[in-house]
Amino acid sequence: MAQQRSEETRSQIMSAATEMFSRSGYDAAAVADICERAGVSKGAFYHHFPSKKALFLAILQDWLGEVDARLTELSQPDQPVSQTLLQMSRVIEGVFTDAAGQLPMYLEFMAQASRDQRVWNATFAPFQSYQSRFGQLLEQGKTEGSLREDVDAQASAWVIIAFAVGVLLQGVVLPQAADWESVAGQGMALLVDSMQRSKE
Amino acid sequence: MAQQRSEETRSQIMSAATEMFSRSGYDAAAVADICERAGVSKGAFYHHFPSKKALFLAILQDWLGEVDARLTELSQPDQPVSQTLLQMSRVIEGVFTDAAGQLPMYLEFMAQASRDQRVWNATFAPFQSYQSRFGQLLEQGKTEGSLREDVDAQASAWVIIAFAVGVLLQGVVLPQAADWESVAGQGMALLVDSMQRSKE
Repeated sequence: MAQQRSEETRSQIMSAATEMFSRSGYDAAAVADICERAGVSKGAFYHHFPSKKALFLAILQDWLGEVDARLTELSQPDQPVSQTLLQMSRVIEGVFTDAAGQLPMYLEFMAQASRDQRVWNATFAPFQSYQSRFGQLLEQGKTEGSLREDVDAQASAWVIIAFAVGVLLQGVVLPQAADWESVAGQGMALLVDSMQRSKE
Repeated sequence: MAQQRSEETRSQIMSAATEMFSRSGYDAAAVADICERAGVSKGAFYHHFPSKKALFLAILQDWLGEVDARLTELSQPDQPVSQTLLQMSRVIEGVFTDAAGQLPMYLEFMAQASRDQRVWNATFAPFQSYQSRFGQLLEQGKTEGSLREDVDAQASAWVIIAFAVGVLLQGVVLPQAADWESVAGQGMALLVDSMQRSKE
């Protein structure tokens, strides 16, 4: 019961903070305002988060954890890698749904990252872990024969990550400009089509 | 002579501001500091820029103008569109060279955009103009026959822009993680390969 209430408090603080950071920016959002919005005492706040920065990083970790969970869910060992890759564009859909209305927060991570090494590492290190994950997947596709042998797995993994990052950024800043889920799917299909073992 | 001096002053202010915005962020960089760094009077500053925001937007316009100039330079009417597309990945190289060391400024545009409509429009409207430019180019490729007839020109144009934006962002934040010019070239080659009319 106490455990459950504690988790609720933590999640109330995180959602109030997301709102405050989005509206006013990280620097302007004070711990006192976040506490007021969340309806918790400062004592409760500092019980959960040693600092505003720790809270900021916890929100980012939460997002990244969800992306990881989705990627793992989609990596089924019993299907060809080419098929898995096509399905991965659906992860982008999920991220769009989660990120709806959270653009300022997303941009705030990047802006803070440029001035703080810990935020920097937390924000950008995941790019490298996603790349290494996709690099392994592409190597596996070459081994099993669903991808061409001359595919440069490392560079192509970066191509996939770059495309995903770009689609996400554009979808967040220009939500109405295109059907971003369809763009994600079509882009992945173009990339996989080139990497696939020729069907002749 | 007066004209030339005036342009020099303008460019000194812009380069001092880029440095200050990058180091301290847009909000913290005061006009007085920018003037001191540039070695100009406040009078001279306001002669060139009505406000700090106008200066900020002028720096962004400068960057975007250079990208436009590079794209126009590469669009030669006497070669197939598929060839032009492959060459376009070189525009990304140019942007990397210009952007070296300017990451915080780049992120600062995005962070400010989330809180200011004018900065927002100036930062993100160009995505749509690049997309429409690439959409036309892809349509032209279908008409001339170098690209497949079933290519979705509008969606594929967004795919290209998304990929370019993602490569640029990653190259700026993780310059050492990969050979980004090579990733840009290989990604464009994968995309063009799928869109190209089958060679059989």
